[in-house]
Amino acid sequence: MKILETLRRKVDSALGNYLPAKGSFPKPIHDAMRYSVMAGGKRLRPILALLTGRMLGVPEPKIMPAACALELVHTYSLIHDDLPAMDNDDLRRGKPTCHKVYGEAIAILAGDALLTYAFQLVTQKIADKKLVPALVEELSVASGSAGMVGGQVLDITAPLLLKQKHSAPNALNLCGKTHLLKTATLITAACRMGAVVAHADKASLARVTDYGQNLGLAFQIVDDILDVIGEKNKLGKTPGKDRQQNKLTYPALKGVRSAETEAVQLITRAKISLKSFGPKAKPLIDLADYIVSRQS
Amino acid sequence: MKILETLRRKVDSALGNYLPAKGSFPKPIHDAMRYSVMAGGKRLRPILALLTGRMLGVPEPKIMPAACALELVHTYSLIHDDLPAMDNDDLRRGKPTCHKVYGEAIAILAGDALLTYAFQLVTQKIADKKLVPALVEELSVASGSAGMVGGQVLDITAPLLLKQKHSAPNALNLCGKTHLLKTATLITAACRMGAVVAHADKASLARVTDYGQNLGLAFQIVDDILDVIGEKNKLGKTPGKDRQQNKLTYPALKGVRSAETEAVQLITRAKISLKSFGPKAKPLIDLADYIVSRQS
Repeated sequence: MKILETLRRKVDSALGNYLPAKGSFPKPIHDAMRYSVMAGGKRLRPILALLTGRMLGVPEPKIMPAACALELVHTYSLIHDDLPAMDNDDLRRGKPTCHKVYGEAIAILAGDALLTYAFQLVTQKIADKKLVPALVEELSVASGSAGMVGGQVLDITAPLLLKQKHSAPNALNLCGKTHLLKTATLITAACRMGAVVAHADKASLARVTDYGQNLGLAFQIVDDILDVIGEKNKLGKTPGKDRQQNKLTYPALKGVRSAETEAVQLITRAKISLKSFGPKAKPLIDLADYIVSRQS
Repeated sequence: MKILETLRRKVDSALGNYLPAKGSFPKPIHDAMRYSVMAGGKRLRPILALLTGRMLGVPEPKIMPAACALELVHTYSLIHDDLPAMDNDDLRRGKPTCHKVYGEAIAILAGDALLTYAFQLVTQKIADKKLVPALVEELSVASGSAGMVGGQVLDITAPLLLKQKHSAPNALNLCGKTHLLKTATLITAACRMGAVVAHADKASLARVTDYGQNLGLAFQIVDDILDVIGEKNKLGKTPGKDRQQNKLTYPALKGVRSAETEAVQLITRAKISLKSFGPKAKPLIDLADYIVSRQS
């Protein structure tokens, strides 16, 4: 999709401008922050915020700081997730992980600093200050202990929990909850933050939320399928880690084919949520199709 | 000081109410957050926010969410600081550190969640939403890569830096910068946030900033003196760690006596900053005296 590539470049450029300058004092932390953020990535969350805003009539520059804040939160979560005490990954976005390059201590602090900087960015760079409280609320709730961080906790503790009381329906239920918190809440927040900047009404916000949740759940299932069938050089990370770490995933619980069907159904639901927006929703609908067919 | 004890109890009670309920889903993260926050502590940062606000005529409840957010940020920094990859401490506030009780992964995530929750608290619980952007800005700038996290980076990397180009003036200079970022910026932000809620004018804000910086620097020097001469059961943490880890401190560079003189001078400067506020500044001035004479 050409529009994705165009927006990805705009987001990359904005991130480069927003981040503290390379080598600025204290040097190691700013180098590490920049290294991980600028290592590439699909920039899905910022693009979702920008496209949702565009659908609702808001130009990109008004949303860009919030869009980039979402990517900073996402990147911090990857840095911490890759740590030896967590998933212990050596490769991310095709490059050595942050702690492999800068050491564990700086990697922990770089994650902390990116999370903090996300809130600084929203409050300093969003021009209409009246929007700041709602945007900070969306971002903090979605990324906190009842959102993304909570999902990480489930992701880590689920294999242990299931050993204690093993049953298939339990496992599927817990897997769904994990995906919702770990992935879908921040993706939903991305769409909602675009809508907040657009002063969207309650009904539009509900539709956008529905789109984000279904898209987010599908995104995680596709991610887990790619971990089974994907190639390392395309993924930019090591495949096969989920099975190795006994992670709770749809492909593991129901098989790859059944997981694919589930992802397609979720994407269909996501697209239906936006029907009432008419042709303006086309980029978000195309994005949903892209999510389910992606190879990396 | 009786007022400190009264305010400490109010802050403890507010923190207990604000934190996600013990055992709420996902349980391990909420238990770990509560464990570290409610393990005690002087609550210096919240008390500074409350007393600054009081001096400028604002009742405590209006500042309490921002005051507690400061303590959440402080506690997250302690949790991450105590990790094996950082200072590797087993004891904090007289109790086993978070990672000793909940494991490293949950401790990292509990820190992340507390930092995130600090911003959620400010945006959701500060009644006057117009204050939210400025409060989020104070908190994020003071705790980010050019503030507290930056100070942590210096704290870790300074011994290494000095090995490369060893000289006493360099060391003292770097030590001062480390203290300013690691400790004084968040303590200053505490005073400033109290002043922001009070809609303080520029001149008052400058005086309060001056007080906070001098107090913060003195606080860190006293902390480092106590690490040399303090007792484990009073401190609630293991003394002697700075020397063991070759940390850059005033007592190490200039001796305990000289460090004490430096702390007293800073406290004098802090108190002078508030002179123009008259008798209303008394609690903050008493607090400054307490800081330099404390035993734990």
